[in-house]
Amino acid sequence: MSNRPSKSSVGTVAMRWHGDRLDLLDQRRLPAEEHWIVADGASAVAQCITDMVVRGAPAIGISAAYGVALAARHAGGGDWQAEIRQAIRVLAASRPTAVNLFWALKRMEQVFHSCHSLNDATDRLAVEAVRLHEEDLAANLAMAGHALDVMRPDNPIAVLTHCNTGALATGGYGTALGVIRRLHEESLLDRVYADETRPWLQGSRLTAWELTRDEIPVTLNVDGAAAAILAAGKVKWIVVGADRITANGDVANKIGTYNLAVLARHHKVGFMVVAPSSTVDMSLASGQEIPIEERDGSELLELRGMPLAPVGVPVFNPVFDVTPAGLIDAIVTEKGAVRNPDLTGMRALFT
Amino acid sequence: MSNRPSKSSVGTVAMRWHGDRLDLLDQRRLPAEEHWIVADGASAVAQCITDMVVRGAPAIGISAAYGVALAARHAGGGDWQAEIRQAIRVLAASRPTAVNLFWALKRMEQVFHSCHSLNDATDRLAVEAVRLHEEDLAANLAMAGHALDVMRPDNPIAVLTHCNTGALATGGYGTALGVIRRLHEESLLDRVYADETRPWLQGSRLTAWELTRDEIPVTLNVDGAAAAILAAGKVKWIVVGADRITANGDVANKIGTYNLAVLARHHKVGFMVVAPSSTVDMSLASGQEIPIEERDGSELLELRGMPLAPVGVPVFNPVFDVTPAGLIDAIVTEKGAVRNPDLTGMRALFT
Repeated sequence: MSNRPSKSSVGTVAMRWHGDRLDLLDQRRLPAEEHWIVADGASAVAQCITDMVVRGAPAIGISAAYGVALAARHAGGGDWQAEIRQAIRVLAASRPTAVNLFWALKRMEQVFHSCHSLNDATDRLAVEAVRLHEEDLAANLAMAGHALDVMRPDNPIAVLTHCNTGALATGGYGTALGVIRRLHEESLLDRVYADETRPWLQGSRLTAWELTRDEIPVTLNVDGAAAAILAAGKVKWIVVGADRITANGDVANKIGTYNLAVLARHHKVGFMVVAPSSTVDMSLASGQEIPIEERDGSELLELRGMPLAPVGVPVFNPVFDVTPAGLIDAIVTEKGAVRNPDLTGMRALFT
Repeated sequence: MSNRPSKSSVGTVAMRWHGDRLDLLDQRRLPAEEHWIVADGASAVAQCITDMVVRGAPAIGISAAYGVALAARHAGGGDWQAEIRQAIRVLAASRPTAVNLFWALKRMEQVFHSCHSLNDATDRLAVEAVRLHEEDLAANLAMAGHALDVMRPDNPIAVLTHCNTGALATGGYGTALGVIRRLHEESLLDRVYADETRPWLQGSRLTAWELTRDEIPVTLNVDGAAAAILAAGKVKWIVVGADRITANGDVANKIGTYNLAVLARHHKVGFMVVAPSSTVDMSLASGQEIPIEERDGSELLELRGMPLAPVGVPVFNPVFDVTPAGLIDAIVTEKGAVRNPDLTGMRALFT
């Protein structure tokens, strides 16, 4: 593999840290407009996570870390420790499934517990949040290298991806989309098929936007077209991210991922999950233990206020599904790849 | 099975024939408004088919038949036979994949060839179109009976369906949705999971609307949630329609159908295709020979003028996919069911 690409090849970021505030690109309004929301405290950050101003498991974790830093920065004259503890609680309640959130908050909490003054906490929590952000970016670059070692394509290949796992979902390069970036940088990418990814249309709104900006060849398709695309034979790998990976290698990710894993196996196409090790939750035995967020039915019933379905129709709107480890060819993190994941393979890399 | 249900249990129709015009419910504007378009000639009917004012393989065939009747009705004083032949050509070019269109036009053409005057043609083509419409409705009712004989559920079951195959897609009861109606009438339906069916949202806009009007319990889900729903174990059958069925039992149907067939097999859930025998095209050996319509990428890039994706992104937008016969448990028509369809089974029923 060639040298690491320069970060400058990535044309967008999800957040900008200013020390006393966190600016978040409002991903709900993409691609129509690039609107930034200023989060000036932990509650504002938590609200942005709940409302999906910022989304993507790693980006959620990083944002939450900055939220804790903001809580220290803006703590009043009273019980600053109670204020920070409360901020952590609010941030932890912002979304339930992606474990990176809890991992990031735990890391911030550990620093917080060793702080002896508010000044100390203000400085060190900010440093820790920035470090966590930088580590995520470095992890993205490392996992892209490991993924290419697994794929080892001789010629440019087509891949299919789901949701958005790029710069907008991470510290700045991407997990699954980082692998796709790396394939492109190595001239090993023929084309990306991007599922539009209902109901939130991360594929149309974010992945297509991000890849187009960076001149990476992308074709958009409805989620239901995946089997037809695989049957045509051009796609060699399906590459997706993860919101939580359990000890046995089961993977919670965006609704529709499990569909793709079944389709990949049926068509003998590789299925790869790419995520930082902060997504791995060895405390859960299997995917059945992962809490799966369900969001409001309005995500299916309307689009920006325009009705798509009759008023009052019941909706089943889980945000994630669980792909059993048995359907996964490789889980790739910055620590390396687990092929044909199971408890033994996961333990070897993650304990 | 009990007696046939009264047609009055169906709360909507796709078209109304008035002898000198065909009124078509504009399915593009549902569920927001019930707007009827008056088609006063064959060209207007053809345009309505192309623009998907009316859609669904059987409803397209019936509409085209009425279009031929209108061509006779409104033929000028000149070469009326040339006018009708031209009308048939225009109607045949309206959409490429659903074979019911060509089947209906062939039937109308046979009547036309035996007409000796314009008056004769005007009368007999109108009678034939109405007959074809009535036969489609009767076929829907018959196939529902055959389907229940295949399913034979002991208790109410949940089913999952895709696209819209109900009164809006047919002569008035439904193919796959007719089976679901019949299950409901027999108190054998727990619930219908309806795929929203991107990009045209037939599930949200039409199926949910139609079932809600008729008080049949429906839950809407994104197409990508199908695997999660099947994994939960409640769904016993996936029931879908068809746009063309070839001699070996391959089925072209709405994009996303093939996905569902793979998922059904993986989860050991039954997969049933329900369609009138006019959907069967024994002249094609396999699904590879079916022309698959691709529609404009704007169906993914915008919704009623609102942008969903960056301008200019390439789109792959096939309207149909092909499900191989090997993934289908039963093809059900008004003539009966072909279980585990293959050339032998198809020939036994359809030649």
